[in-house]
Amino acid sequence: MRKALSLGAKGKGSAFPNPPVGAVLVKRGAIIGSGWHRAKGDKHAEVLAIESARNTGHDTDGATMFVTLEPCCHHGATPPCVDAIISAKIARVFIACRDDFDSRVCGAGMSALRAAGIEVIDGFLENEGTELIEQYRVQRTENRAFLSLKWAQTADGHIATKTGNSQWISGERALRFAHRLRAEHGAVAVGANTAIVDNPRLTVRKYRSRHHPARVILAGDRELPASLNVLAGDVRTIVVRSSSDGERLPEHVEVVQISRDEDFWPIFLRKIFDMGIGSVLLEGGGEAITTAIRARIADKIHIAVAPRLIGGGKPAIGDLGINSLAESIDLDRVRFRKTGDDMVIIGYPQWT
Amino acid sequence: MRKALSLGAKGKGSAFPNPPVGAVLVKRGAIIGSGWHRAKGDKHAEVLAIESARNTGHDTDGATMFVTLEPCCHHGATPPCVDAIISAKIARVFIACRDDFDSRVCGAGMSALRAAGIEVIDGFLENEGTELIEQYRVQRTENRAFLSLKWAQTADGHIATKTGNSQWISGERALRFAHRLRAEHGAVAVGANTAIVDNPRLTVRKYRSRHHPARVILAGDRELPASLNVLAGDVRTIVVRSSSDGERLPEHVEVVQISRDEDFWPIFLRKIFDMGIGSVLLEGGGEAITTAIRARIADKIHIAVAPRLIGGGKPAIGDLGINSLAESIDLDRVRFRKTGDDMVIIGYPQWT
Repeated sequence: MRKALSLGAKGKGSAFPNPPVGAVLVKRGAIIGSGWHRAKGDKHAEVLAIESARNTGHDTDGATMFVTLEPCCHHGATPPCVDAIISAKIARVFIACRDDFDSRVCGAGMSALRAAGIEVIDGFLENEGTELIEQYRVQRTENRAFLSLKWAQTADGHIATKTGNSQWISGERALRFAHRLRAEHGAVAVGANTAIVDNPRLTVRKYRSRHHPARVILAGDRELPASLNVLAGDVRTIVVRSSSDGERLPEHVEVVQISRDEDFWPIFLRKIFDMGIGSVLLEGGGEAITTAIRARIADKIHIAVAPRLIGGGKPAIGDLGINSLAESIDLDRVRFRKTGDDMVIIGYPQWT
Repeated sequence: MRKALSLGAKGKGSAFPNPPVGAVLVKRGAIIGSGWHRAKGDKHAEVLAIESARNTGHDTDGATMFVTLEPCCHHGATPPCVDAIISAKIARVFIACRDDFDSRVCGAGMSALRAAGIEVIDGFLENEGTELIEQYRVQRTENRAFLSLKWAQTADGHIATKTGNSQWISGERALRFAHRLRAEHGAVAVGANTAIVDNPRLTVRKYRSRHHPARVILAGDRELPASLNVLAGDVRTIVVRSSSDGERLPEHVEVVQISRDEDFWPIFLRKIFDMGIGSVLLEGGGEAITTAIRARIADKIHIAVAPRLIGGGKPAIGDLGINSLAESIDLDRVRFRKTGDDMVIIGYPQWT
């Protein structure tokens, strides 16, 4: 199942509107096939696993499947996986978590397998399976894009020096982790100030991926020089402006308007979702991150902490009006992940 | 050797001016004796290990000793350990690290053992052995107390809210870790503001220890109310003032004067060393920590990071005048240690 989970993770950024899923087929203690779902319209993980077993000359009769999510039992863009599993004569299916977010599945996938005489064991590495589809859960239940925040800071909590020097706070391995994180989202976003001052490309370079997330610049009423790196290249690029006015942008750039007096974050995450983007990784700057936290809508936070001190500098999060520790925003299900010399803190802010 | 190291660590706060040392005796794969050095005048770890073996009816003839530091070969407050090892007919001695800091030892301990026909293997878990005597190294080479800094901060780098609320940022297990850290130092210090606002006792309560570090208040020219918790109780208490004037303090309180125009930190660490204190754990507040970092003298830093955000609050370290990341203070030999829901970052600031 661990292999199925790590295969499934490859589809995190690209599977939308489908969930990322991984599947592994085992027979007599050996892996005979595996697959993961890349994108809508592509074959599902279960079917790919069965095909890969057959393509390498294996008989799937009596095999065991490990799949991260309950197989579908309906005709969508592809035929139901349940049928494929039954006709492959698979004897046993381990499932990490149920698909409670697609009303056409919701346990019906498991029932159909059981009705065909297949042994089904669900809830196997359920926490990991649930985490794999965390973006999908928000997409299905809230009809908006999932929002992740990510920043790098010094051990004493600064994302830049007083004069704005921020490249690079983290080490090489944390940068590779940051690029992988980009590949696991539908879009990467920054505020106008970061787009102009740091002039990033926001592309995935330090991690091998066939999926290239869109780039989003939260421009507000700021003008963006057409020479910015983030406006160049052939990656989908979206500029969000607070008014319909504004300078001419390169032709490939899509412009979205969300006025200043609107409740920016829920509207933005709904609009971007309707544009086919299921998740956004907001990388900065401090001002954009602060507004996303003030809106109490961020789903997940990644903080790369570098083992260095600068004492006085720019904070990641501006004033939230919190005076008592009792009002602090707690992170749930926290993981600390060592990446090179840095430590990444990963958690889910609790808004209730 | 791991057991010897963890036994040795029990003497970290109390062994001064001796180094903390742990020793374990093994015969035919079983531990037959162990010991650690508690305080000057008490028996050394090697002797205690031999005695504990004999007291439990074991014959030390042919046994193997694991000792964290090269045994002494001179008459100090106690007779030389080398003689005890030889007369106990120990066959083999594993040593984590040499004692290069006492000119009477410096390899002579190992030579004496070898001359007596005992097999000596040194450098066994040398890094861990060297870390165990890190306070001793600074004491012997610089004739001053070792200085550790410790603070607890939110994930976004604040040690308190804007209004000064700081109890408690960390969870229960991180507090226990903080109390253990106190027990591993000769003294615990805070600035006057922290002593007054937080009104801590600075005693070791959440960790079982027979050693009770002294308490030091860096009062500067601030008056201290006699009712402060830190002035109560029977623990050795030292107030450092910038002038000889000042309010009457309880009789048991020792007063040290270091004037404002002097180079505070080196003078303080020398004076406290001469008062029989080999290491100081500075716990705050931000101002005291900032001056210790500005003085470029802190030896070790512990930062407990709690998985919560407050966005806007008091920083651990004030402005150091650093404008470029190239000037940042890097931490060396960094360890990340999970304690409950918190993460402790431990490192050694590089001043060169």
